[in-house]
Amino acid sequence: MSEDITHDESGKSLGQVEKQFFTFAEPPNEMVLDSGARLGPITLAYETYGTLNRDKSNVVLVCHALTGDSHAAGYYSDADDKPGWWDNMIGPGKAIDTDKYFVICSNVLGGCMGSTGPGSVNPETGRPWGMDFPFVTIGDMVRAQKALMDHLGIKKILSMTGGSMGGMQVLQWCVQYPEMVHSAIPMATTMRHSALAIAFNEVARQAIIADPNWNNGDYYGGKKPNLGLSVARMIGHITYLSDEAMRRKFGRQLQDKNDLSYQFDVDFQVESYLRHQGAKFVERFDANSFIYITKAADYFDLTRFENANSAIRVFSKAMARFMVVSFTSDWLYPTYQSREMVQAMKKSGLDVSFCEVEAEWGHDAFLLPNRRLTDLVRGFIDSVYQDAK
Amino acid sequence: MSEDITHDESGKSLGQVEKQFFTFAEPPNEMVLDSGARLGPITLAYETYGTLNRDKSNVVLVCHALTGDSHAAGYYSDADDKPGWWDNMIGPGKAIDTDKYFVICSNVLGGCMGSTGPGSVNPETGRPWGMDFPFVTIGDMVRAQKALMDHLGIKKILSMTGGSMGGMQVLQWCVQYPEMVHSAIPMATTMRHSALAIAFNEVARQAIIADPNWNNGDYYGGKKPNLGLSVARMIGHITYLSDEAMRRKFGRQLQDKNDLSYQFDVDFQVESYLRHQGAKFVERFDANSFIYITKAADYFDLTRFENANSAIRVFSKAMARFMVVSFTSDWLYPTYQSREMVQAMKKSGLDVSFCEVEAEWGHDAFLLPNRRLTDLVRGFIDSVYQDAK
Repeated sequence: MSEDITHDESGKSLGQVEKQFFTFAEPPNEMVLDSGARLGPITLAYETYGTLNRDKSNVVLVCHALTGDSHAAGYYSDADDKPGWWDNMIGPGKAIDTDKYFVICSNVLGGCMGSTGPGSVNPETGRPWGMDFPFVTIGDMVRAQKALMDHLGIKKILSMTGGSMGGMQVLQWCVQYPEMVHSAIPMATTMRHSALAIAFNEVARQAIIADPNWNNGDYYGGKKPNLGLSVARMIGHITYLSDEAMRRKFGRQLQDKNDLSYQFDVDFQVESYLRHQGAKFVERFDANSFIYITKAADYFDLTRFENANSAIRVFSKAMARFMVVSFTSDWLYPTYQSREMVQAMKKSGLDVSFCEVEAEWGHDAFLLPNRRLTDLVRGFIDSVYQDAK
Repeated sequence: MSEDITHDESGKSLGQVEKQFFTFAEPPNEMVLDSGARLGPITLAYETYGTLNRDKSNVVLVCHALTGDSHAAGYYSDADDKPGWWDNMIGPGKAIDTDKYFVICSNVLGGCMGSTGPGSVNPETGRPWGMDFPFVTIGDMVRAQKALMDHLGIKKILSMTGGSMGGMQVLQWCVQYPEMVHSAIPMATTMRHSALAIAFNEVARQAIIADPNWNNGDYYGGKKPNLGLSVARMIGHITYLSDEAMRRKFGRQLQDKNDLSYQFDVDFQVESYLRHQGAKFVERFDANSFIYITKAADYFDLTRFENANSAIRVFSKAMARFMVVSFTSDWLYPTYQSREMVQAMKKSGLDVSFCEVEAEWGHDAFLLPNRRLTDLVRGFIDSVYQDAK
């Protein structure tokens, strides 16, 4: 394997971190969404790591992917056996060095990990929103994060980064609030969700909707659409791995048996892996949030921002210095899509570098320890920080 | 587009064809399956096109893919608006020329288009088998086809071909009944089902199993698991197309609207296409057959035939002349898998040629009119026929 899959030993873990909450857009000052609907109050769950410096010039904003959350690094308690989702990237001495930078990560609007979403209580009815929750877009998620930045008194983001749907938020930030973003690292992402990516999301949604327990989204307090959500997650997991990763990880190896069973139980390890991922996921994720967030990703088309209908015109609004990162084995958001993005950025006159990182783990590569990736991120943010001083 | 997607004008349609049935393995002479179970009686639905010559030397056996059937070419009646699934390939003057060859295609064992499968009546109970139907393998499907050849008095197959799971049957035939197969064209296939291919099938099966109407396979006469089967089909359809095909066919085009709806209905054409494919499929296919047949494909590993544990050793049993065909944009059974197969065939001393056909339509390319493909097939079969005379 070309990548280093041991944990990055170059830094320590943050240790204990805490989830915080910020509530805003209280009526009558609701947030106006891209759809035109109004939503408020809105709560965002967020975490911060490191210390904000006096001139607030060391902010790194991290955006999570589809099923991520605000818990990007550290542990909630000593008993916690799993750190945040990007603990290999964020911490003291790590690529995003919390000894130098003040790192913020918030759960997206529409999510289910502490931020307001379809599982939250609709103040008008006193019951969970379900599918009455208004439609949210990547632009709306960014709008809510902007309110959090305002609340924290942050006017300038030194650097922001995220992979997959996190990368979409990064791109959106750079054109929606261009004066605030000094530099950006969109990873394993796209400026326009492809037909293939929409197709996978649509089938995943249909799997949830086909579950009678989904009940048009009105299942809170009753039986949850766990079977449908589990199938949806399995579909996702296939897209996160590459053909090669699957071959190396599973091949045709059998699960807990020496020979084929000629039955319909699990025979192959890859079957067992997928079922396990599906079963684990339903314990932590809300099916309606899955529907809302996948739809937000499907709607993402930066080239149509403010009806520009041109990637070059859209990026000409941006002021950030960019480092775009793609991964060789990512077939969900393949390298050619990053190249298109980089070309448009260059034509817009932006300062952009592009790195295709060698990785065998498919789309998920951005989440996994990878020395080349951490070196790139460390080098880019440190250089931006030096230049900005 | 590099391929010719108009219908092949070089031949006429067969006109009216008829589905026939052959029943064998009557108790106590049941067929012994790879699992060790016994099954009988067995009916195979089949069709033949063209005329068997006097010395029975002009037989072309065509094997269908996962959800195909015996209806490879022609029309059942004048009112029929759709010909068989390979009508562009098979007919008078076409690549598989029914003016010269006697073409046979049968529905696989375990299927639901006239052959015995889980939807057939279990003679012991008088009720449909459901999940009590015995487990079938590609080897069992081939064993049943062999009985049909015996019934038709055919001792030698001039050439056999099929794509995808049809190609697996072709490969299996060549090592299971080597003396009978004179030449073979496995297309868009693999000698060993990959972890990725198993993963897609497993998720599709889970989508069916998650449907409460599936009821452990006991749904005949009641509500069918149409929602689950529809999701399963949608998953399949994604794998049959390529990223590029989806971009060209759908891109981000909206369905019957000028702007995004900010609702959870269909927005994009690709969503509408998938839902339509799912809905159409449940009208013609049995969910249990889908489970059985996908599992047979997942079990397929020719390298383990008769415990050889070596592709070279297995192919050294074969006597056929081969032409292996893969398609550039097929990511379900990618070209590298065909190359591995060809290398093993060569090392076994077989006469094999290999063609990677330029095609943008992904795995489904073998089903679509493609001048290069039809020229290859025509040339190969005609040359084999000349040499055999």
